[in-house]
Amino acid sequence: MKSAHQQPQDCDLLITGGLVLTLDEQDRRFDPGAVAIDLGKIVDVGPAADLGPRFHPAATLSAAGCVVLPGLINAHTHAAMTLFRGLADDLPLMDWLQGHIFPAERKLTADWVYWGTLLACAEMIGSGITTFCDMYLFEHRVAEAARDAGMRALVGEVLYDFPSPHYGPIDQGLRFTEDLIREWHGHPLVRIAVEPHALYTCSPELLQRCGDLAAHHEVPLITHLSENQAEVDQILARYGRRPVAHLAELGLLHERLIADHCVALDQHDIDLLAEHRVQVVHNAESNLKLASGIAPVPRLLAAGINVALGTDGCASNNDLNLFGEMDTCAKLHKVATLDPTTMAAPTVLRLATAGGARALGLGDSVGTLEPGRLADLIAVDFQQPHLTPVYDPVSHLVYAAGPADVRHSVIGGRVVLKDRVIQTLDLEEVLHHARRIARIVRS
Amino acid sequence: MKSAHQQPQDCDLLITGGLVLTLDEQDRRFDPGAVAIDLGKIVDVGPAADLGPRFHPAATLSAAGCVVLPGLINAHTHAAMTLFRGLADDLPLMDWLQGHIFPAERKLTADWVYWGTLLACAEMIGSGITTFCDMYLFEHRVAEAARDAGMRALVGEVLYDFPSPHYGPIDQGLRFTEDLIREWHGHPLVRIAVEPHALYTCSPELLQRCGDLAAHHEVPLITHLSENQAEVDQILARYGRRPVAHLAELGLLHERLIADHCVALDQHDIDLLAEHRVQVVHNAESNLKLASGIAPVPRLLAAGINVALGTDGCASNNDLNLFGEMDTCAKLHKVATLDPTTMAAPTVLRLATAGGARALGLGDSVGTLEPGRLADLIAVDFQQPHLTPVYDPVSHLVYAAGPADVRHSVIGGRVVLKDRVIQTLDLEEVLHHARRIARIVRS
Repeated sequence: MKSAHQQPQDCDLLITGGLVLTLDEQDRRFDPGAVAIDLGKIVDVGPAADLGPRFHPAATLSAAGCVVLPGLINAHTHAAMTLFRGLADDLPLMDWLQGHIFPAERKLTADWVYWGTLLACAEMIGSGITTFCDMYLFEHRVAEAARDAGMRALVGEVLYDFPSPHYGPIDQGLRFTEDLIREWHGHPLVRIAVEPHALYTCSPELLQRCGDLAAHHEVPLITHLSENQAEVDQILARYGRRPVAHLAELGLLHERLIADHCVALDQHDIDLLAEHRVQVVHNAESNLKLASGIAPVPRLLAAGINVALGTDGCASNNDLNLFGEMDTCAKLHKVATLDPTTMAAPTVLRLATAGGARALGLGDSVGTLEPGRLADLIAVDFQQPHLTPVYDPVSHLVYAAGPADVRHSVIGGRVVLKDRVIQTLDLEEVLHHARRIARIVRS
Repeated sequence: MKSAHQQPQDCDLLITGGLVLTLDEQDRRFDPGAVAIDLGKIVDVGPAADLGPRFHPAATLSAAGCVVLPGLINAHTHAAMTLFRGLADDLPLMDWLQGHIFPAERKLTADWVYWGTLLACAEMIGSGITTFCDMYLFEHRVAEAARDAGMRALVGEVLYDFPSPHYGPIDQGLRFTEDLIREWHGHPLVRIAVEPHALYTCSPELLQRCGDLAAHHEVPLITHLSENQAEVDQILARYGRRPVAHLAELGLLHERLIADHCVALDQHDIDLLAEHRVQVVHNAESNLKLASGIAPVPRLLAAGINVALGTDGCASNNDLNLFGEMDTCAKLHKVATLDPTTMAAPTVLRLATAGGARALGLGDSVGTLEPGRLADLIAVDFQQPHLTPVYDPVSHLVYAAGPADVRHSVIGGRVVLKDRVIQTLDLEEVLHHARRIARIVRS
């Protein structure tokens, strides 16, 4: 029996060396640590000296000098809007939308969405994001781009009362969404959500039809919610209720609801979100750039609400950089509350990992490094001036690391970034198509 | 005569290819452009096709695929505090200072300051900063580190009423400062300033002695000013005047005064700063992290005050990343004023270049790319997913580019970063010393 125990176990991949942050409940750390991966899942995580002799991996990946942690989760974006990055900035919201973004989007095609999303995937993979949640048009092409890039994604077609440049009338939009749900059911990387755009673009009837569809298929329901005071005023004027109360009245506040932004909230809104265990996605930089306001994240967390981080689309940020979002999130709320102890680095790192996983309904699958979980993880290269010396690696991840510090990334056990080279995409081809489309946008 | 005109002119360096942003008054751009450099200065800037045949360079540097622009200016830092990066975060100011930073600084030596500053120089060179302004202890070692790294710097020993761990009693501090001024007079890279720490640590007598010394040698006077409301309250209680008015009363508001932070200002403060043409350095991220507040930068600019950007020290930021500061600055004031049009990208880029140059008394020397100016410039690699496509390069520089995108850097005509490799320092040696010192800090 003893010799059988000593026989190394076969596995697909062993990531070894470096400091492993599991971010599990006990916050276990191993230095040098190792992660054994087989069939897309984590088989074991522990000290490198312990795992090394116990596994016989088909491949190894050195994380020497790195910090290994769960992949970052971008819980709200409009990925294909990379194509419009920097097209128009520093404008009032309505000028920006009506003068620049809507005219550009009128030219939108399925081809644009595919290549724009692949461009986003290239940026996200290169910056340590392993899962993203998307809302846009031609979303079947987003699903395909995520699959082709090897990224985990929760995607859904944006739905609203008026006809869509993609699916036309709303009945077709709902049918299209249901077809997507069926088509991608059981896919290892891509899941589908039902995504009514916002309360000011969706009638109560549409919101309820979306809610019913999401409930029927047990998939997430996603919407923009209380993004700024103007939205609150508009919904109040139209329905006599604030946006959160409006959703409550429609029976749509629940644990599968992912509410993006949640900037303009009063205490009753926060109580309702907490009571119904709604998932909130905080998009700090987009809210700053569009002058929307500052979401009361410390109060949301104090109320027990799960909060994730998102970049929003590249037309209002202008990047897909969750390191930047973590840094901004950790700092911004300190000044907003005049309390330098709020939103400490470990709290913020959890929003970008476990918080994101839970928000997207992946709380049991990703967000921590534990045996049985899907193998979504990144290695961040700490052998650099701006990450030296190291007293607290979590502080560096939140306050000093940047996207380009990500050396390797693994999604579902597949190495998608190795020594900063994307393994799943032809980057030159993606850049070529992005430039081709930009020429049309410009014209 | 004609053939003589066609004879190419010798020069030290030709940077060619890429889009050249001069950031001069006419905002001239050349694509592809070139910059000819000789004896540390810019000889010519223009279309690559024009300069190529006219110059015979000893060396060329390709900036193909890059955007070439003036080097960034970090107008306020405590460079050697890189050694304390992440030592303690998310704490109230006094706990942080008295429980962590002051105890660590009690161990401070000239050796630590030298290596800590070189570590900072490595980070700054690698992130596109060509000039920095420093306030700390053992500042002769900061001057030497800047010289050894090949960086342009304005440095000065921090002065206050109580004895310094470096120079002892204040009389010796003033003598030390004057010796530094004499010693470095005429150095091509390093200049010295007189740097009283703050109004709450310096008596009116000391402030005036500092002012006299700076006036006598015609060097900048630098101090922290109105960093938060607590400081304003303290100065009001002690002197019956707000900090800015206190300096005005002492006759110390003038064009050579560099005032760091300027967060807690009323309209009268702003009027005084404008009237006396004081230089203001905005440290947005440090002010957020320490919960100091948000400086009224749009109002300062509207009043005609010159504003520069700074990172502050790494113990309160925690990096020396001016791309991050530009991004934060452009976004933060939009939400602070609820005006998405304020602090547009071109305005913010000028704060980080020409604004910094003017603040540090280098307004005629650096900050734009024009013939006769010192050759301080950087090339930012735009051939990347997060910088593709390009509608507006200035938008990308402010909202999407990061430190790792800097491919080359030139300071005073010397190539200090080439293809992301620092040319002036042994990076491994610097990292080794930083880790050695961190072990002592930790113990």
